[in-house]
This record gives sequence, C-alpha cells and structure tokens, in this order.
Amino acid sequence: MRIGLIAPPWIPVPPPAYGGTELVVDALARGLAAAGHEVLLAAPSDSTCPVPLVPDLQPADSRTLGFTDAELAHVVRAYAAMADMDLVHDHTLAGPLYRHRPVLPVVATNHGPFNAANTAIYAAASRDVAVVAISRHQASTATGVRVARVIHHGMELGNVPVGDGGGYACFLGRVNPDKGIAQAISIARTAGMPLKIAAKMREPAEIDYYDSVIRPQLGSDVEFLGEITPQEKYALLGGAAAMLNPIQWDEPFGLVMIEALATGTPVVGTPRGAAPEIIVHGRTGFLTADLDQLAGFLQQAPDLDRAQCRAHVERHFSARRMVEDHLQLYADVLAGGTGLPAVPEAAAAGLPGTVRPEPGRDPGSG
Amino acid sequence: MRIGLIAPPWIPVPPPAYGGTELVVDALARGLAAAGHEVLLAAPSDSTCPVPLVPDLQPADSRTLGFTDAELAHVVRAYAAMADMDLVHDHTLAGPLYRHRPVLPVVATNHGPFNAANTAIYAAASRDVAVVAISRHQASTATGVRVARVIHHGMELGNVPVGDGGGYACFLGRVNPDKGIAQAISIARTAGMPLKIAAKMREPAEIDYYDSVIRPQLGSDVEFLGEITPQEKYALLGGAAAMLNPIQWDEPFGLVMIEALATGTPVVGTPRGAAPEIIVHGRTGFLTADLDQLAGFLQQAPDLDRAQCRAHVERHFSARRMVEDHLQLYADVLAGGTGLPAVPEAAAAGLPGTVRPEPGRDPGSG
Repeated sequence: MRIGLIAPPWIPVPPPAYGGTELVVDALARGLAAAGHEVLLAAPSDSTCPVPLVPDLQPADSRTLGFTDAELAHVVRAYAAMADMDLVHDHTLAGPLYRHRPVLPVVATNHGPFNAANTAIYAAASRDVAVVAISRHQASTATGVRVARVIHHGMELGNVPVGDGGGYACFLGRVNPDKGIAQAISIARTAGMPLKIAAKMREPAEIDYYDSVIRPQLGSDVEFLGEITPQEKYALLGGAAAMLNPIQWDEPFGLVMIEALATGTPVVGTPRGAAPEIIVHGRTGFLTADLDQLAGFLQQAPDLDRAQCRAHVERHFSARRMVEDHLQLYADVLAGGTGLPAVPEAAAAGLPGTVRPEPGRDPGSG
Repeated sequence: MRIGLIAPPWIPVPPPAYGGTELVVDALARGLAAAGHEVLLAAPSDSTCPVPLVPDLQPADSRTLGFTDAELAHVVRAYAAMADMDLVHDHTLAGPLYRHRPVLPVVATNHGPFNAANTAIYAAASRDVAVVAISRHQASTATGVRVARVIHHGMELGNVPVGDGGGYACFLGRVNPDKGIAQAISIARTAGMPLKIAAKMREPAEIDYYDSVIRPQLGSDVEFLGEITPQEKYALLGGAAAMLNPIQWDEPFGLVMIEALATGTPVVGTPRGAAPEIIVHGRTGFLTADLDQLAGFLQQAPDLDRAQCRAHVERHFSARRMVEDHLQLYADVLAGGTGLPAVPEAAAAGLPGTVRPEPGRDPGSG
C-alpha cells in the first residue's frame, strides 16, 4: 500500500524532546515501512524519521504552534505531494477539512482531547474522513463525531530495556496542575518513598506553576530533574518502584503509562481518561480516585510482577499492534468497510450512514 | 440575491476600535442589505451590524487570534448555516479551503498582505473560489493565485463630515515601525508643523516600540493620543492640514488614506503598496519615496482643494461603489463568467483556465 502520513509543522518527527504526536507518527511510519509498505511522510524538513519525506517543507517552528496560516500552508503543500498515494493518514487539525485534489481517502487521528472547537471540526470532517480515536474514553467524548475506529497508541519496544526497579517513585510529564505533579509529591511523602520528577517546563504558565507551587515542595526526598532525553527517561522509569500518574484531567491516552510499563515499572494513579484502558488494576498497577489510598498502593507496587508489566505492553501497546490495526483500518476504508466512501467526494450528495466505534481490544483480558 | 458573509471570529462587526477587515465587512453587509439583497452574516455573537446574524456563534475573542481551532470551528458553524444562500463571501483564511456542504459558490477576500504561508493557501483555494484582491499592488504579489478581481475597499460616507482643516498634521495607525510613525515625527518637525498621533498600542511589541523609540521623541509639538473612537478619528482627520502616511511596507490597501480624504484632508506619504492607487499626486496628496521631500510636500498640502479630496472618495472609494463591484462579481461567479465553475466541486476533475485580474478602475482618471 502507498500511505501518506501528515504530521503537524511544529515539531520534528521523531521529536528531539517533548512531542507525543510526533513520537506516535514516527513509530507508525517506521512500522508501516518495515511491514513493506511505501510511506511518504509530510513533516518538518528537519525530521530524521528514516522514511521518504515530502520535499521542500519548512523546518519545525514551534513559535507558530496552533496558527492557521502555518498549519494550512503545510497541509496544502503536503497534500500536493500525495497524489500517488492510495490513502492519507492525517495527524493535523486543519488537514481533514481541506478540499484537497486529487481526492484521496483520508484517515484522521485526533491526538488531543475533544473540546468544543475541535469536536465541531472533527464532526464536520467525519462526513468524509475516517476519524480515529486514541482511546474508548476519548471516543466517548466526541459528541457528534462519527468515530470510525478506536486505536490505542503503541511504541517500539526493541530499544527499551526492562529495568530492575528500585527504591524510588517517579513522575514524568509537564509542570502543569492537570498532570497531578503536586498530588504525586504528596502521595510519595505519605508513602515514605523518594520521588524523582522529570517534566517539561518551557511555557510561562509552566514556569509560574513551578515557582509558586512545586519548587517550595522540593527537598532531599523530592528531586526535580527538568526535561530529560529519551535515554534518561527509560533509565529513570526502569529504575523506579512505580510511576505515579495521579492525573487530574481526562487525558485521551497517556504515552508515559505504556513507557513505564515497557520498562517493567507499574503505574499508580487516578482512573481518569484512558488510564483504565491501559492499566490492569492489581496486576500492572493500581488505579483509584481516592488520593488517600494511592500512598498505600504505592507501597504495594514493588510486589507486582515487572515481567507482567512488560508483557502487557508487548501484547497490547506495541508499535507492531498499532501498525496492524491501522493497516486493517486503511484496508477497510479502501474497501468501503467503514461506511465511508473510498473516495470522500462521492459522498457530496448525501451523508452516509452512521458508523459505530468498534469496541477495540480490552487490555483487561490480556 | 441571498448572500452569506463570513467574518473572522476575533473582532465584532463593526469593530469597537481597531479592525480594518471588520469595518469593510460591516460596510459591505449594510450596503448589500440596503441594495435589497438578503444578507446572512457569520460574525462574533457580540456584533452589532444591523443584518441577520448566524445564531449560536461565539462572542469575539481576540486572545485566539490566528489559531486554527477557533477559526475552523467558526468556519464549520458558519457554513452549516449558509445552506440556503446563493453564494458565500468568505473573509476568513481557513474558510476558502473548507470542504463545505452543501457546495456553494464562494468568493474570498484576502485582507492582508500575501506572504509565503497565505499565498500557498489562496493559490490552492483559487482552484475553486473567486479570490478578490484589495489593490492591484496586492494582486501583483499573489504569486500562483488566480485573482478573480481587484476590488478596492469603500466606506460609508453619510456620517463622515468634511472638516475645515487646520494647522496640524496627523498620523493614524499602529505603533509599529512599518507604519512610519517615526518618519512622520521627523517630517512634521522639519516642516515646522505640529503633529497629533493616534495609534493602537496593545501588543507587547507595540508597547516596547513606543517606550524605546516614540515616547522619547514626543514634545509640545508632537502629541500622542493613543487609540481613539471613530468619532474622535473623524474630528482629528478633518481638523488636520494633512495626514502623514510615510509607510515603510507595502500595505495592501490602507483604509486610513480614504478616511482622511473623506474628511477633505489630503495625504502625504510614501508611494508603497496601494498608496499610488488611492492618492492622486498633486491633487489629493503627495507621494514620494524621498523622505527629505515629504516635509516640503507637507507644507504645500494646505494648498490642495479639500473638496476634491472628498469628491475623489465619493467617486472611487464609497461603500456604494464597493457594493456594486461585489454584486457584479457575485453575478459573474454565478454565471460562470469568472472562469470558475458556479458550483466549485464540479471542477474536481480538472482545473479550469486561468483568469486574469481585471485592470479595475483607475483613480487617477477620476
């Protein structure tokens, strides 16, 4: 199959540091190519993903993040290079509504939460485009959007070593109240376990939150490492007794959870967003909305079987599984099996029938 | 004719203060309605333009200015309300590329300069959409864009009194080096004429420029008024001997020039962008790239006939003329006379032939 992938213009693929969307697009591109498919990737020109790139795109510019002019210009140039593809998988927000030519079947993934603005956008796009949700929870919030399929993220496991665990808990994310960084500190202190925090802190709001809330709570038992490299990340995760993930919002997926499990480290956190789809309570971690109980669960985490944690990711959250799910979806779209016309514009005269999201795999059964 | 107008989501129509696009959309909406047409305006819900508004849109939010999610969500909701229109005139950036349903003929105006990003966007849009340029100069910079027509802006003149002129020069714009505010100060001082400056100053860059460059140059002969209301604007303009407009960039139109002329006040400035299409050198003002000569021209400006300045706007830059030009374009689009198919999607199989921009009226002959 000839598959065009379109990443946003803000961050290279793979990302040098923070960038969940770009990490997933990178794994998908490599996996599709490894499976023998022809992949053409539209991404910033400084991307290093080892597949053919659309030429003459701009280098990544995070200063234009979210702006219509930069995104739409990128989308226009990307689709102009896709004429020979069988199908386009679009990871931008503006692309799925673009009246591109020649008309191609399009699959679109929303990597963020469904909010008022982008729900209206994906609802309109889903008349013509197969919209992928990244968790059943995210799909349940996509009011008015015809979700063609739920496909969980996956990750490449070849370079991720299983760690031996250790005597500390870790936190990985952004310096943001939604991520539960303050709750993690409180839980670790109550459990009497040291905490190592690795977190992105670049935006003014992140720096303000660090200065006003987080820094005053640091001490010999709670260490702040800042933003770390992928190598440092896996060492930190693999050396931990558990990863604390007491998120305070409905995160649509949560790559850090599968990254922790991949190193053998269980996850202790709140059952919000996609967390219950990723963590098997009592086997690969513990989930409860009761923050007081989480300290007790953190103390129990070293008793969990680290090999089970790794095996769960290999079975349910590998790049291979993610690639297979997408190939099945692409084939279904081309065959008309998603209820969408293979060539979107053919639907111009009327809207096709409703497609229900598939139940998807249940990690709890693995 | 049933005409849908789509304004951007950032500023109400008409604008309470700064907002050239919204001022033009307001004049167009009123003029089309006054000419007996059915107008439906998609604009922020706090707009006060006296035509029917698309219901349930968001209020203006300038904090989201330029962002894809806010703009595209607005565009999706706007087109969803346009099904019964004969034609849509879209003033957003994202709208002209939106695969809307049911498919309607679309006219799109670029109110800003053509830069690398939006030129790619309008070039793609112009396969299906009649792109309007707001000056011949702007059209000349639209590389790869099939410009359907050049239509100069116009303004409602009924409420604009002709002033008596006076002993000062004025400057109207933003606190920005491109607008020539520092040059205006220098020209006025050389000419020995007091200067009154009214300018928007909200963005951090504007405030920085004011603090570092403009404020140190103020004095009893150079007064800074900040941002002013429309009423104050016409009083300031009408009471001036001339408006200084020594722009340092190729401004695609320049509403302030026709606003000054409407009050009878000539314009002295640089011949950049659309200025030579608006100002008749030696009759409604003076244009030269030589900044040293501008002080001499400023001294000559009181000798020009203020009635001629007003008459020039009435003839070439009235809302009535702007409305008539658009109605002619709309009719041509519906009749297929612009070379675009009346229903854009019919062009999906192949691109129609090239349309050259029309020469447009020449203000110099008026």
